[in-house]
Amino acid sequence: MPKIAIVGSGFIGRAWAISYARAGYDVSLWDVDAQAPDAAVSYISEVLTDLDDNDLLNGQSPTDVLARLRAEPDLEKALDAAVHVQENAPEKVKVKQELYTRLDELAGPQTVLASSTSALLPSRFTEHLKRRERCLVAHPINPPYLIKAVEVVPSPWTSDAAMEQTRLLMLEAGQSPIMMTKEIDGFIMNRLQGALLEEAFRLVAGGVASAEDVDIGIREGLAARWAFMGPFETIDLNAPAGVRDYVGRYDGMFANMFEQMKTRVDWSGEVLDRIEEDRRQRLPADKLEERQKWRDRRLMALAVHKRSQEEKTGK
Amino acid sequence: MPKIAIVGSGFIGRAWAISYARAGYDVSLWDVDAQAPDAAVSYISEVLTDLDDNDLLNGQSPTDVLARLRAEPDLEKALDAAVHVQENAPEKVKVKQELYTRLDELAGPQTVLASSTSALLPSRFTEHLKRRERCLVAHPINPPYLIKAVEVVPSPWTSDAAMEQTRLLMLEAGQSPIMMTKEIDGFIMNRLQGALLEEAFRLVAGGVASAEDVDIGIREGLAARWAFMGPFETIDLNAPAGVRDYVGRYDGMFANMFEQMKTRVDWSGEVLDRIEEDRRQRLPADKLEERQKWRDRRLMALAVHKRSQEEKTGK
Repeated sequence: MPKIAIVGSGFIGRAWAISYARAGYDVSLWDVDAQAPDAAVSYISEVLTDLDDNDLLNGQSPTDVLARLRAEPDLEKALDAAVHVQENAPEKVKVKQELYTRLDELAGPQTVLASSTSALLPSRFTEHLKRRERCLVAHPINPPYLIKAVEVVPSPWTSDAAMEQTRLLMLEAGQSPIMMTKEIDGFIMNRLQGALLEEAFRLVAGGVASAEDVDIGIREGLAARWAFMGPFETIDLNAPAGVRDYVGRYDGMFANMFEQMKTRVDWSGEVLDRIEEDRRQRLPADKLEERQKWRDRRLMALAVHKRSQEEKTGK
Repeated sequence: MPKIAIVGSGFIGRAWAISYARAGYDVSLWDVDAQAPDAAVSYISEVLTDLDDNDLLNGQSPTDVLARLRAEPDLEKALDAAVHVQENAPEKVKVKQELYTRLDELAGPQTVLASSTSALLPSRFTEHLKRRERCLVAHPINPPYLIKAVEVVPSPWTSDAAMEQTRLLMLEAGQSPIMMTKEIDGFIMNRLQGALLEEAFRLVAGGVASAEDVDIGIREGLAARWAFMGPFETIDLNAPAGVRDYVGRYDGMFANMFEQMKTRVDWSGEVLDRIEEDRRQRLPADKLEERQKWRDRRLMALAVHKRSQEEKTGK
């Protein structure tokens, strides 16, 4: 199978490595910290056991998948013959600019250079490159081996060929690519998340709701539908004659609300004290890590549930 | 067990009846249309079989639960000795004002009058009543027997006693009450949904995403976490030191995006043509009803999944 290079083998890089190796790709892991790739491989080995227990390895054994991974201390060797580079360096323009200069020199001309960045537009760190047309962003929701959506974002100079090659790779890797037509701050998912969070902060700041009230309203309310339909299919099914009927009924209500949502609440002001107090009361700071493990178990169980429902009841 | 009166036995009323009867309450169903309560009971009887097949009747048989329901053509008898009235009349101020005048006269002084309205503030149809302090909104996400969140919303004159009585009832009925401190357009859930939809319409209007891209970003992306955590717990676990750390890292990015979100997109303009076209291509209009049944099966399966995970892995 073709080879993929993971550049930056921390939190995101190692998760990508699982997704690609599970799909059958050979994966080399490199990091500026020479210890990181080996640490990543041993972390991955544990995750693979969990995935196997949940039948999430497409019928392969953890040993099969692990055999495709290789910690590679030398960047040139890591990139050699790779069809795709998945870069997961720190979210700093300068760091990425310098790194991409090296990647652009070392990687073969057909290799796509894809960044996992969530915060930087691809144009900000690829403009200066010789082969900048093969650079783009492929932004996952972590971890990609459990959450399928990946935003594929072009800069103004990204070629259609690089976009298409990445789309096909994402499908091969079992992801659900969202093919964007242009770069925009926050891409799609963080814009949707941002819009929801703006109102959530505002509700807490106005004394209308606690952080927990907001969380109940989503986790015991709206997200029950969003988790398998998304917001547009949800409203399409929420009025007898579909989405146009829904808009006809409720547009006025939403237009009215929007007028109250135009001023930003300072997230780091007093409202953050209140939210943090609520959260720390429910989850002390020293339990955050344990709770992250619980989240990952729940995400795994949800992935299994969704797959089984898609087989049984349809997608 | 105490008795609950369902006033308005359509779509929402019958769903409430299931939730209350399953919890052991006697339930009388009334409607301005004399045929509706009987139709509701026969509809409910089918749903109870489905719920039983999914072990969602708390160990009771459909016959046990059905025996607690009574179609009641006479409003006075329906209200007699009820501790709680759940009103589900059309979303028209005038209709509700007149109905509440009757309910206020007929219901005993301790009876809470709760409206299922999603669009009207409780003050708009209860101000004129003699015992207006026992009136409030209890707004579910339909169907409440599968989705737990219920917003309990006071008018300026609702008593603490009525709020507390309703909170306890909701807990008894297996719901997750969100206790609001004041009325506000859209309450909490429709404000959060509205904020997200505003940005979703804007992304489609700007040619950045299709309706399906947005739906993928939520159903294969963000909602995987929101479905069991909510947005605040999500960001609390998304930075090593919790929510304050998250805000420190990303506040600037979200502040920047917010500047691009201040102008409203006309939902019913050209963007709606595009969204409707995308939806109808995926789901022809004559399949909407079938797809709504699919949605209800998926909601039921998700409710079962969440319960089992909460028992196994914790809430």
